[in-house]
Amino acid sequence: MSSIFREEIGEQPAVAARLLSEAAGPVAEAAREIRDADPAGLLIAARGSSDHAATYAKYLFEIRNRLPVALAAPSAFGLYGSPPRVERFCVVGISQSGASVDICTVLEQARDQGALTVALTNQPDSRLARAARVVLDLRAGPERSVPASKTYLASLVLLAMLSDALDPDPDFSRALRKVPDSLRQAIDLEGSFDPVVEALDAPRMAVLGRGYHLATAEEVALKITETCYSVAEAQSIADFLHGPVAAVEPGFPVLLLEAAGPALQQMRELSKQLAGLGAQVVRISDDRLDDRMAISVATGLPESLTPLPLAVAGQLLALRLALLRGLDPDRPRGLRKVTITL
Amino acid sequence: MSSIFREEIGEQPAVAARLLSEAAGPVAEAAREIRDADPAGLLIAARGSSDHAATYAKYLFEIRNRLPVALAAPSAFGLYGSPPRVERFCVVGISQSGASVDICTVLEQARDQGALTVALTNQPDSRLARAARVVLDLRAGPERSVPASKTYLASLVLLAMLSDALDPDPDFSRALRKVPDSLRQAIDLEGSFDPVVEALDAPRMAVLGRGYHLATAEEVALKITETCYSVAEAQSIADFLHGPVAAVEPGFPVLLLEAAGPALQQMRELSKQLAGLGAQVVRISDDRLDDRMAISVATGLPESLTPLPLAVAGQLLALRLALLRGLDPDRPRGLRKVTITL
Repeated sequence: MSSIFREEIGEQPAVAARLLSEAAGPVAEAAREIRDADPAGLLIAARGSSDHAATYAKYLFEIRNRLPVALAAPSAFGLYGSPPRVERFCVVGISQSGASVDICTVLEQARDQGALTVALTNQPDSRLARAARVVLDLRAGPERSVPASKTYLASLVLLAMLSDALDPDPDFSRALRKVPDSLRQAIDLEGSFDPVVEALDAPRMAVLGRGYHLATAEEVALKITETCYSVAEAQSIADFLHGPVAAVEPGFPVLLLEAAGPALQQMRELSKQLAGLGAQVVRISDDRLDDRMAISVATGLPESLTPLPLAVAGQLLALRLALLRGLDPDRPRGLRKVTITL
Repeated sequence: MSSIFREEIGEQPAVAARLLSEAAGPVAEAAREIRDADPAGLLIAARGSSDHAATYAKYLFEIRNRLPVALAAPSAFGLYGSPPRVERFCVVGISQSGASVDICTVLEQARDQGALTVALTNQPDSRLARAARVVLDLRAGPERSVPASKTYLASLVLLAMLSDALDPDPDFSRALRKVPDSLRQAIDLEGSFDPVVEALDAPRMAVLGRGYHLATAEEVALKITETCYSVAEAQSIADFLHGPVAAVEPGFPVLLLEAAGPALQQMRELSKQLAGLGAQVVRISDDRLDDRMAISVATGLPESLTPLPLAVAGQLLALRLALLRGLDPDRPRGLRKVTITL
């Protein structure tokens, strides 16, 4: 069964390559403005998949750039009409459509307070873009599938480019240029997904990551919930061990997002602990694993960039799980492409 | 069946009353230090239930005090060893035990950077307290049940007192003094819980709130997951409508946390929409509802304080659901009282 979601997943290497060659100018301008403003931190407003891109930004800018990142509660700005004083922050809005009323409200009020505002959007003529001093265009082309794929990936690429422009590092720049190939590598693995897909054919599951891959866990869990109607709960392994681990019983499926880095040892220990409880543990990993219950996307990228290929593997996993269940991944029940929340 | 969890739930009116009469001094000192430091915002580090108290703090300080609040990613400080520069923030740690290594690390590094540090803990001689310039003692007495109740409530009371000390308002102060009675009122309702408890006897469910009650949704979902082993996913209704709503099918249980305030109309509309999809909608509300599928805790408190009695109702709901299933709420499988994450 052909699907628009699958088609758009396949476009991602080209989307990443296009940004790397065309977006350097606006990214450099954003970096210059941020350096001039010298903000106490970034405040990022986003919903859905874009909010998971914001989670990636939190780890990336805090660890690579040592810049604190807060995720906005849009209702404080809109619904409650009592916005926090954000003039010492750089306020960033991420929205594919640029039309989410609550996200636009955050940027407009921040601009009116005098804060530096930046928009990441696929619609550079949108209301969100008009509220921003600097606009970073996702350049992803129209996204027609309800579950987002290429606009999520494009947000991550732009955020990584911005992080590099703020604190340039030749190794990181070189790795960034390898991202399109790494995405192709993830896509080429699709044929080997069946054992993992079948293991996740369940009404509920946990999707766990830590550090940089908390974002990947959130995004993959959302893809699975949207396209397969499973309740897939995403969490940091640290929070999972503070309570939700109690729900694990024999056969309970757990998907681990696992990449080389300081969190790896903890992930491996958790994996053993969960297997001991009888959980059905499967993995998406950047390691070369000889394990049919793992999808191995061994790209050699630094941990800060593995969220890009691993998210693509997760999108394909959600797609194949939907097809296994005879569901149409392009049109999840109850959802529209643009969700308006006030 | 008697349980320690039930006993500690019952202690909460006394815990709140004790804080209101004994903690005013340290709270005033914390407010003075924060005013002097004039931070760009608060950065709060916490795990588990304490992290839900941090979510409450986000709405409370952003809306009441117009002070931006960021929730810390502890791994940036500890695991990755590359802490963000937080000297322009007031850094707050919340931990019942004061022993969570990752939370202590955040406060220690913030102190070493020169940031103002504040600890909320039930152990005023703990490592967390030693890293803080100002210590707010939860004064909750030993908490023996693994699922937290009175230390969560005590954190909320202290946060509300601190918000009031920063921006005093006689109406808010008066309402705060009514909190112990409102908790008694929630506890006295326990006998009427059966229809709601039976409706939630399912392996998976969603627990939804918005604004101030996102924290309540997170905490009640965790109580249900810990004590009843259901996968209970907590979300803002805004995020829920961006994807997870697709998982709703006939009979799917949804628990709404609903209080008078700007989000109420949206909650009511969502409730109708979910009922239209065949979901089994139950509510914890601060309205006087004539509906056996609602727990009505009509306290007359302002929305900013309803998270306290509604959380207590949610604790009792989790307790009764555990008892219905023949589970021991004091000792969830796989959990210990103090979870050490590095």
